[in-house]
Amino acid sequence: MARGEFELIERYFGDIGLPAANLSLGPGDDAAVVSIPPGRELVLSLDTLVEGIHFSPGVDPADVAYKALAVNLSDLAAMAAEPAWFLLSLTLPVIDTDWLDAFAASLRKTADRFGLSLIGGDTCRGPLSISIQIGGLVPTGDYVTRGGAGTGDLILVSGEIGLAGLGLAQDRGEIELPSALATRALKALHCPQPRLELTTFLRRHASAAIDLSDGLIADLGHLLKASSCGARLDYSRLPVDPWIVEHDAVDDALAAGDDYEICCCVPPGAEAAVATWNREHPECPLSIVGETVAAGYRMVRNDRETDLSEVPGFNHFT
Amino acid sequence: MARGEFELIERYFGDIGLPAANLSLGPGDDAAVVSIPPGRELVLSLDTLVEGIHFSPGVDPADVAYKALAVNLSDLAAMAAEPAWFLLSLTLPVIDTDWLDAFAASLRKTADRFGLSLIGGDTCRGPLSISIQIGGLVPTGDYVTRGGAGTGDLILVSGEIGLAGLGLAQDRGEIELPSALATRALKALHCPQPRLELTTFLRRHASAAIDLSDGLIADLGHLLKASSCGARLDYSRLPVDPWIVEHDAVDDALAAGDDYEICCCVPPGAEAAVATWNREHPECPLSIVGETVAAGYRMVRNDRETDLSEVPGFNHFT
Repeated sequence: MARGEFELIERYFGDIGLPAANLSLGPGDDAAVVSIPPGRELVLSLDTLVEGIHFSPGVDPADVAYKALAVNLSDLAAMAAEPAWFLLSLTLPVIDTDWLDAFAASLRKTADRFGLSLIGGDTCRGPLSISIQIGGLVPTGDYVTRGGAGTGDLILVSGEIGLAGLGLAQDRGEIELPSALATRALKALHCPQPRLELTTFLRRHASAAIDLSDGLIADLGHLLKASSCGARLDYSRLPVDPWIVEHDAVDDALAAGDDYEICCCVPPGAEAAVATWNREHPECPLSIVGETVAAGYRMVRNDRETDLSEVPGFNHFT
Repeated sequence: MARGEFELIERYFGDIGLPAANLSLGPGDDAAVVSIPPGRELVLSLDTLVEGIHFSPGVDPADVAYKALAVNLSDLAAMAAEPAWFLLSLTLPVIDTDWLDAFAASLRKTADRFGLSLIGGDTCRGPLSISIQIGGLVPTGDYVTRGGAGTGDLILVSGEIGLAGLGLAQDRGEIELPSALATRALKALHCPQPRLELTTFLRRHASAAIDLSDGLIADLGHLLKASSCGARLDYSRLPVDPWIVEHDAVDDALAAGDDYEICCCVPPGAEAAVATWNREHPECPLSIVGETVAAGYRMVRNDRETDLSEVPGFNHFT
C-alpha cells in the first residue's frame, strides 16, 4: 500500500501519457527538462481546481481528473496551440487509495486521448485541490490572442452555451430537466470538451479568441476589452437549447460559466469558411452570433437593443 | 478597491518582474507564450505551498511570497538552470487587501532580485495556497540530475544544515536558542536562500545534485537511489552549528526539512575545485561530507558505522 509521498507519486503518477517527443528529463528529479523544436513557441497555462469551489465534495474523482486537464486544454484550444505535456500539483487531505486509483486512471486516459504526458509536479497534504500547468506548442507567431479583433469582424461561438449552467442547476436540485437534456447538461458540466479540433480553423481565420469559462457576456467582454472594440450580439442566433428559450433562461445561459466552448472573431467575409467548417465538422458547429463594432456592447432582440456592458459574469470573488 | 478576480489580477499581479527576454505574450490572455533561444533547454518545476502545512496561519505574507518563489528557485538551482519566468496560481479565502499588498510587493521584489518575470496564472477562492510553476533555461544537455553520481564521488553540501529545523522548533517554543542563532535559524526557515550562485560550479563539476527540502538523509537517499549507488557520510564533517552538536541534535538536523541547501556529488579529485570555490565564495561554502560507495548508506562516527537506510526523512504523508 502506497503511504508516503514518494511512493504515492511513483505508484500513481509515474507513467502517465506517452513520453513527450521533446522530453529530456521526466518526473522524479527536482525539475523536468524539455526542448522546444525549432520554429515552435511554447504556450503555458496554470489553473487550479479547488474542492467546494470548482467541484463538489463527492464528485467522481475520474471527473475531477478529467476536468482539471480539460480546463487547461481549453486554454490551449483558445490559443490555437497543440497540447504537449503537463505538470500536476495535487493537494490531498488524506491518502484515499480508491480515490487515487480512480483519479490517476482518468488522468492517464485523458492524457492519452489528448496526446499529453505528465512530466513532473508534486503532491502535498492540505485541502483537496489540483493545480495543472499545461504546455502546448504553436508554430512561431501562429498563436491567437484575445486582442486581435477589428471592427466588423464576425463573432463566432462553438457548440452551445448554457449547458453546463443547466447541469449545475440540475445538480443542485434547482430545476428538473427532461432526462435527455439532463444527461447532456451534466456531461457538459462534469466532462467539458476542450475544442482542440478548432486549432487549424483558428490559426487560419481567427483574429481573436477566448474560451468560455465565465459565461459568454463576461468572456467576450474580456476579448473586446483586449481588442479595443465593441460588439452587437443577435439574440436570435445564440446557440442555446430550445428548453432555455422556452423557460426564458437565455440571460442565465449568457452569464453561466464552465461551458469551455470557444468564442472567436473572424474577419468580415469569412461566412463561407464558417459554412465549410460546419459542413465538415457537425460535432463542433460554429454559430455566428453577432459582429464587432467600434464601441458599445449590446444585444439586439426583436429590434430592441439592451446594454451588456454592465451585465456581471461569473467571478470567483463577487 | 479591488474586489473582483480580474481587477485583483490586474492591480496586484499585472507587472511583476521585467518583461522576460523571450516572452511573446504575457499575463492577461488564456495562456502565456514564450520562445526558447536556440541552444537552450527549458527546466520546469511546479510546487504548492499550503497554509497550515508549509507555513503557519499568520506568517508575514511577504515571507510566504518569498518562500513560494524560493523553493521553486531552489529546484532550478539543483538542476543548474537559470531562472526565467513563473506562473502563479493563488487560492485565497477572502480578498484581504493588506495581505495582498504585502504579498505582491514581496513577490515583485523577489522576482526582480532573481531576474524572474510573472507571465501568467490564475486566482481563485478557497483555502489559502500558492502554486508556482517556474521555468528556467540551461544550455542544451548541461542540466544536472539526481542520477549521475558514480562510485567514489565526493558528496558536498552547501551552507549548513538543520538551521531551518532549529527555526521551526524555536517558532513552536520547543527550544530556546541564543538570540543570534535564533535570528539566523528563523531567517533560514522563513527566507531560505536558493543557491543559484552554484550554477556554474554544478555545470562544470557535479555528477549529480538535489536540493535539500526534506532533510539531508532523505534527499541524499533520493540522489543515491537515482544514481544506483550508496554513500558513507562522515559525522565529523557535517556542516552544522556548534549548538546542534552540543545539544546532541545532529540526528534531528539530518532529518529536518526546509534548508534548501544543495547536496551534490563531484568526481574524486575535485578537492582542489572545491577549495577554490570556498576561497572565492565564503558566503556559500561547500563541505565535503562523505563519498559515494558501491552499496549501503552509512554514517561513520568515531570509527563506528550506523545504517542510514532506514532513517525516515520529512514526508508530507507520514
